Amino acid sequence: MEKIVIMKFGGSSVGDVSKIKNVADKILAKKKAGYKIVVVVSAPGDTTDDLLKMAYDITKNPDDREMDVLLSTGEQISISLLSISIKVKGIDAISLTGSQVGILTTDSHTKAKIKEISSEKILLELAHNKIVIVAGFQGVTEDKTITTLGRGGSDLSAVALAAVLEAECEIYTDVEGIYTTDPRIVEKATKIDYISYDEILEMASLGAGVMHARAVEVGKKYGVVIHVRSTFTETEGTYIVEEDSAMEDVVVRGVVFDKNQVKISVLHIPDEPGVAASLFESLAKSEVNVDMIIQSTAENNKNNISFTIDKSDLAKAMIVVKVLEENGTKILYDDEVAKISIVGVGMKSHAAVASTMFKALADNEVNIHMISTSEIKVSCVIDFVKLEVAATAVHKVFGLDS
Amino acid sequence: MEKIVIMKFGGSSVGDVSKIKNVADKILAKKKAGYKIVVVVSAPGDTTDDLLKMAYDITKNPDDREMDVLLSTGEQISISLLSISIKVKGIDAISLTGSQVGILTTDSHTKAKIKEISSEKILLELAHNKIVIVAGFQGVTEDKTITTLGRGGSDLSAVALAAVLEAECEIYTDVEGIYTTDPRIVEKATKIDYISYDEILEMASLGAGVMHARAVEVGKKYGVVIHVRSTFTETEGTYIVEEDSAMEDVVVRGVVFDKNQVKISVLHIPDEPGVAASLFESLAKSEVNVDMIIQSTAENNKNNISFTIDKSDLAKAMIVVKVLEENGTKILYDDEVAKISIVGVGMKSHAAVASTMFKALADNEVNIHMISTSEIKVSCVIDFVKLEVAATAVHKVFGLDS
Repeated sequence: MEKIVIMKFGGSSVGDVSKIKNVADKILAKKKAGYKIVVVVSAPGDTTDDLLKMAYDITKNPDDREMDVLLSTGEQISISLLSISIKVKGIDAISLTGSQVGILTTDSHTKAKIKEISSEKILLELAHNKIVIVAGFQGVTEDKTITTLGRGGSDLSAVALAAVLEAECEIYTDVEGIYTTDPRIVEKATKIDYISYDEILEMASLGAGVMHARAVEVGKKYGVVIHVRSTFTETEGTYIVEEDSAMEDVVVRGVVFDKNQVKISVLHIPDEPGVAASLFESLAKSEVNVDMIIQSTAENNKNNISFTIDKSDLAKAMIVVKVLEENGTKILYDDEVAKISIVGVGMKSHAAVASTMFKALADNEVNIHMISTSEIKVSCVIDFVKLEVAATAVHKVFGLDS
Repeated sequence: MEKIVIMKFGGSSVGDVSKIKNVADKILAKKKAGYKIVVVVSAPGDTTDDLLKMAYDITKNPDDREMDVLLSTGEQISISLLSISIKVKGIDAISLTGSQVGILTTDSHTKAKIKEISSEKILLELAHNKIVIVAGFQGVTEDKTITTLGRGGSDLSAVALAAVLEAECEIYTDVEGIYTTDPRIVEKATKIDYISYDEILEMASLGAGVMHARAVEVGKKYGVVIHVRSTFTETEGTYIVEEDSAMEDVVVRGVVFDKNQVKISVLHIPDEPGVAASLFESLAKSEVNVDMIIQSTAENNKNNISFTIDKSDLAKAMIVVKVLEENGTKILYDDEVAKISIVGVGMKSHAAVASTMFKALADNEVNIHMISTSEIKVSCVIDFVKLEVAATAVHKVFGLDS
């Protein structure tokens, strides 16, 4: 029997008629290569933005259920146009909405979770030798209300379908795969051939604009091999797979940075039990995500606490910490910082990874403000202006240069 | 119990955000007046044209099933935006696609027929005191394939829903109702208060741009009172109802014209049985709709046949009739003609209606090329240049002037 493959195309791949035709050609080539094909597509190019604008022109706070009805039209446009483009070439195809497939979700509108996917309709159409074209990003509740899956939803649809159909999953994008670091900052960035689920999840959480974490988590849970590759070339991309012992030969898989960090320092805070706890409790209540924290002892039973947050949370955080000023503490913030991280499952079995990184930074006169480590990553907060120097040095010292 | 009313809004009424808000206000006013409301909407303004353009940019002959998937997104956009506009005013509303309502149709894509409408979901939501907003023009087959109902489909959805819910049906348009004739041609045209199903069906078939015949036929079959009225004023419009004896007091309800007629004349055709029959059989095979026909005897066992068709069929018709030229016949066509008709159920009980019309035309030096009558109409083909004079005279002679 022919193998099933999921081919997922994002909005930029179906942004206009000529792009849709190009995608159709890619699908037909794959079909000729002997696969049964299930395509997952996002809404074309700017469609989602256009729809959002219409809704927000009515109100700043549109109803979530109705937003899902509205936004789900985008993928419905893609699936029909793509199906038309394929059928015109004489190959049979059928478009299916999330509801028609039977992608059952929770009723958390605009961020629904997939509960169950029925494979019946898809398998039936595949058996009739049709290319099945599924609307990504969308599902339906048990009472047939339309839902959407939130950011990265189409990737999630594709990986979840691959899990249910025990298929390979190809994610087509406008880059050739996942890189050892951002090629716009480090010229010698190279494409990664294989990367583990855990590494990519860590990279995503550290600020790399790679695949959305939810899709990778589903891939990890069900052992779906995810092949991230280019829509515009035939080159092999990056395979996201379960880690094996061979993967640990590579100490560092990638260098990631986050340019949206702010460091807040609270100086001369009383050294009493519970003071730090109540600070971070207040921040949590205000929905400020705190990333890294360091505490150092100052004089006279006073402490200094520094922590980093995302720039978008700065205003909320300052309201919380300003309250402490009344107790004689001093509040500073520094938004000229960045976080650089190295990620790799190989760290587990290699010693001195962190110190190699620190030495490379020191050799290039990069000061480290804060450090945080886990089993497969080391992160340092540094001055923003040093980011390029730091990234280039760290990328080189771990042998990642092309 | 509150009465249910269907309010149907066409694409021009929901063409942009400010228009959608205006429609929302209209609906809320009706709700305050104490009705349970089911709204039917078309796709916003140019959406359908934009979607068609995308499909036809791919191929001149797009797949019908997929066209229905594509086009049905237009109404889905309208229902969600309208629902958002209503909910933001603090009144509960819910949008439903044709599929979600359960508008079951045949599988004739792009021109499906409604087989059955489930009232269950709508009645449930009405019982929860919600305004129910239904996507017009669309339905679904038993296996959940999306279908559309063809031209005038949203009117049809509205009237069919009114039939199932035993509700009043209001069709909102950009004019104040149905007029005795086209106000752009005859200044003294007046709004009709009541008109019978048969009269409006006759007017539609004679070329008046009023409601689509399919919707009226369903209204007639199930006795749905259809109120055609303006989106932009509060004035009462025109009620389409079952005729009663009082309606027969009005001899002529309206004067209708068709400017898209062409007269074709086939001269000196052999006067043999079957010649005319074979001509019209050939035309039918070429899908040319023939409207009026006259035959006159010429000399030497030859006949002249003239008939009228729609301008858009001229090329097809000429191919058919040109074949006859070989037998010594002569073919002429005249596209400088128009058809003027009077319609009214009162004609059944009033004599001399046709002769009154002919006299009015003669008094104004309008030559009549062809005549055709039925129980409730008289049609004359005249010179196109005489149309305005003719229409004004006929409108006046039957007492329709304002």
